[in-house]
Amino acid sequence: MEQAKLGTKKRLFSGIQPSGTLHIGNYFGALQQWLEHQAEFDCVFSVVDYHALTSVKDAALLRENTFNAFRDLLAIGIDPNKSILFQQSRVQEHPELAWILDCLVPVSMLELGHAYKDKVAKGLDANAGLFNYPMLMAADIILYDTDVVPVGADQRQHVEYAREAAAKFNLAYGKTFVEPKEMIVENVAIVPGTDGKKMSKSYGNTIPLFGSRDEIAKAVMSIVTDSTTTEDYSHVAFQKAPLQTVRPANLYMIHKLFKPDSILFPLYSANQNNYKALKEILIEDIDVFVAPMREKWASITDADVKRIVEEGSAKAKAIASAKMADVRQKIGVTL
Amino acid sequence: MEQAKLGTKKRLFSGIQPSGTLHIGNYFGALQQWLEHQAEFDCVFSVVDYHALTSVKDAALLRENTFNAFRDLLAIGIDPNKSILFQQSRVQEHPELAWILDCLVPVSMLELGHAYKDKVAKGLDANAGLFNYPMLMAADIILYDTDVVPVGADQRQHVEYAREAAAKFNLAYGKTFVEPKEMIVENVAIVPGTDGKKMSKSYGNTIPLFGSRDEIAKAVMSIVTDSTTTEDYSHVAFQKAPLQTVRPANLYMIHKLFKPDSILFPLYSANQNNYKALKEILIEDIDVFVAPMREKWASITDADVKRIVEEGSAKAKAIASAKMADVRQKIGVTL
Repeated sequence: MEQAKLGTKKRLFSGIQPSGTLHIGNYFGALQQWLEHQAEFDCVFSVVDYHALTSVKDAALLRENTFNAFRDLLAIGIDPNKSILFQQSRVQEHPELAWILDCLVPVSMLELGHAYKDKVAKGLDANAGLFNYPMLMAADIILYDTDVVPVGADQRQHVEYAREAAAKFNLAYGKTFVEPKEMIVENVAIVPGTDGKKMSKSYGNTIPLFGSRDEIAKAVMSIVTDSTTTEDYSHVAFQKAPLQTVRPANLYMIHKLFKPDSILFPLYSANQNNYKALKEILIEDIDVFVAPMREKWASITDADVKRIVEEGSAKAKAIASAKMADVRQKIGVTL
Repeated sequence: MEQAKLGTKKRLFSGIQPSGTLHIGNYFGALQQWLEHQAEFDCVFSVVDYHALTSVKDAALLRENTFNAFRDLLAIGIDPNKSILFQQSRVQEHPELAWILDCLVPVSMLELGHAYKDKVAKGLDANAGLFNYPMLMAADIILYDTDVVPVGADQRQHVEYAREAAAKFNLAYGKTFVEPKEMIVENVAIVPGTDGKKMSKSYGNTIPLFGSRDEIAKAVMSIVTDSTTTEDYSHVAFQKAPLQTVRPANLYMIHKLFKPDSILFPLYSANQNNYKALKEILIEDIDVFVAPMREKWASITDADVKRIVEEGSAKAKAIASAKMADVRQKIGVTL
């Protein structure tokens, strides 16, 4: 399947669960890197809606979130002519291969999966999808002869499991899959929300990525300027602007996503305690930054999204089904 | 999907794992009933090779066993014009739906699965396929709007799990699947092997169903006529021929599959201790019984098998993919 790769670039796979329209935390915390990967790697990006089923049972919500995930990814600059961008559930080879991998890994391995363990540790009864999802994720990755998977250090296990599953298959049936490596993404911005906690839709503390200037202004004006949250971000590179100088920290930390310390440091020093002025500058900076993406977002029609999802998923399907033809031959289900 | 059913007959689903060429134990223990079902129900029969992957990692063996399973089923009289006969692995909707069902059932339910529990009770580390197979089996069954599944009393759980999975889906997303019922098959013949234990390939005590007269003779002549095994079959209906009269019991029990007690009783009474004479009669009786199936078996070409598997699997795929189109709509992965 190696020939399916474009040129000599290494192949990178990354997936995102559809979970509502993007905020600036999503962008700086993960998706900005997709744009960097897109320049360097032969990328396969997937909106993994079958993974979302482990938690989402509301069909209308899943549909809306999935649709918006594609529109958002296109708006930030994922280019379907450079990268393969597809919907996981359109490629049946994913759950199919997951089943085959299930038959190769011990239950005891899945019992150690982080998501499952965390759920059980909370005294909750996980669903079997949550238990099995590492093998669906393994299938996601190895179907495309993926070389690298960018992950945060805390997600290393996902790739280890995929590599282990690929290795077990190769051992049992002969070399078939590339055994993927994790690419630990260092220095990922930890983006505080308007309340100082990590920016997350579930906390209701987000600044929308495609919001109007008014929506941005409303969110920024709600940023809590109490300085007690400072220490939460003390582990983030922050050396050039001592905390005591740049409080309130979360306002500064959000601002820092858009302007370098060299500009912000004198600005915040000159405007100590004048939060309103600082916020107005931040609104302007965010607005300038997101305006092109917001315009692109508005220019993408529903029909565009549908066409691009169909085309991208067809490309993914072609690679995955060629791979599965090889797999089927090797496991002995061809007659 | 109800319209996919033929006429007004109830739909019956049954699957068989490919595990080598049939012996008379398979025939009288299970497959003879498929012929009866075929007359009464709208039947969907599957050779479930993806289930076999939980235990078979030898591709050549799986391929050979799967191929032979189809040839054998055709030879005993499964009629692809009356019933749908298909290869599970050709219908990707099975593992796909299994994933969706996984997201609806708790891990604790699968931990109670018999096959998994038995494995763990023996101190063995089950593979994740064995753990998950009840949901693959549930998908097998409910994809076809199955009304009934014939099972032995000890396999009732399979159908309970399928019904539970269907019910959970219907509850979460609205009525979609028929909730199947088990049809407990009573009075199934327990067929002793040549050594008196249950006839099983793994015991090497089988009488082949499609064997030549010489092969049948060899197997029958090896039947152990020591009477110590008598009690093993004392629970089988045996009233008209008191055990002390008809010893050796396993020879009689095998013979009883081909001739009624009313004929065997005087025969065995008249030939007490003349095992050779009794075995020669049994050889003749088996040969007469299997000759038409053996001839049919020999007349079926490899090309016939391939064509029938393709056609049957295409029929199954059409039903399964129509069902999955409905499922996809309901869970929200259509855009």
